Amino acid sequence: MNNEVLKALRERRSVRSFKPEQIKDEELKAVLEAGIYAPTGMGHQDPWIVAVQNPEIVAQLVRMNAKIMGTDSNPYYGAPTIVLVFASHPEKWFTSVHDGTLVLGNMMNAAYAVGLGSCWIHREREMFETEEGRQLMKRFGLPDGLIGIGSIALGYAANAIPAAKPRKADYYRIIK
Amino acid sequence: MNNEVLKALRERRSVRSFKPEQIKDEELKAVLEAGIYAPTGMGHQDPWIVAVQNPEIVAQLVRMNAKIMGTDSNPYYGAPTIVLVFASHPEKWFTSVHDGTLVLGNMMNAAYAVGLGSCWIHREREMFETEEGRQLMKRFGLPDGLIGIGSIALGYAANAIPAAKPRKADYYRIIK
Repeated sequence: MNNEVLKALRERRSVRSFKPEQIKDEELKAVLEAGIYAPTGMGHQDPWIVAVQNPEIVAQLVRMNAKIMGTDSNPYYGAPTIVLVFASHPEKWFTSVHDGTLVLGNMMNAAYAVGLGSCWIHREREMFETEEGRQLMKRFGLPDGLIGIGSIALGYAANAIPAAKPRKADYYRIIK
Repeated sequence: MNNEVLKALRERRSVRSFKPEQIKDEELKAVLEAGIYAPTGMGHQDPWIVAVQNPEIVAQLVRMNAKIMGTDSNPYYGAPTIVLVFASHPEKWFTSVHDGTLVLGNMMNAAYAVGLGSCWIHREREMFETEEGRQLMKRFGLPDGLIGIGSIALGYAANAIPAAKPRKADYYRIIK
């Protein structure tokens, strides 16, 4: 079977090199709208999405993430947009990590569908447990008590989309 | 912006009522293939997918899940196929829950793309921590030490796809 949707789900790849130019508002909106229609546990819509395009805050996120990672490089690969996803602490909402992850997954697929490159970045949990992270969440206007689930680096790919690595032979099995 | 992929990402809904007839092999394969091309942390391909169509094992999963849920109803809504996703314990692989969740997300989107209904079901973590669950994982031929991440109930929808609930007004914000 084949159609445009299956093709996109199979052919989307993580992009780790971005052009510096900012993406179009309509492209960002398409990505965010796909995110909010991801399924969430019991339809509770637990996650919160913050798309950061402000260059100073992007630079701050780069610095915060690099510090957790213990590196001087840019963990967001120079992407001009960073889309952060937050959700309740798992003790408060049992599917919060799954819910936030499904939002990120839909956004990566949507990014591919509109010709953008994206890559899941990590360490937002640790970043937003710091005092600096908590201040930033306040500045974003988020409610208290959330944790960072993950993020995507978003922008125009600087290079050709890499080929998929071969999948492990026994990734799935069917029990008839 | 609009295209077939964005439309599918926005319009897929969870289906909670299934026809008893089994889905076609090619439909199942399209769903599983979308799952294995989901991104995983560091490209590690940590998850494992088990699609169960054997009626006796489906009935066993229904019973195991209902026991955790504390109900007599069918937590998989009568779906003829249950697709289970397992992954390493998070102490062994730091993105295992995220990785397994992205696999499940891609499979739900692919299901919609081929005209199937699907719904994320839960409680597989608890189900496969029991002795019965451990025996079943052995029967599936899975390596030791995995945990259940979640599953999807998969089949032909018995009713029209429900409309999306309105999304919360401040689901996303853009920081320019």
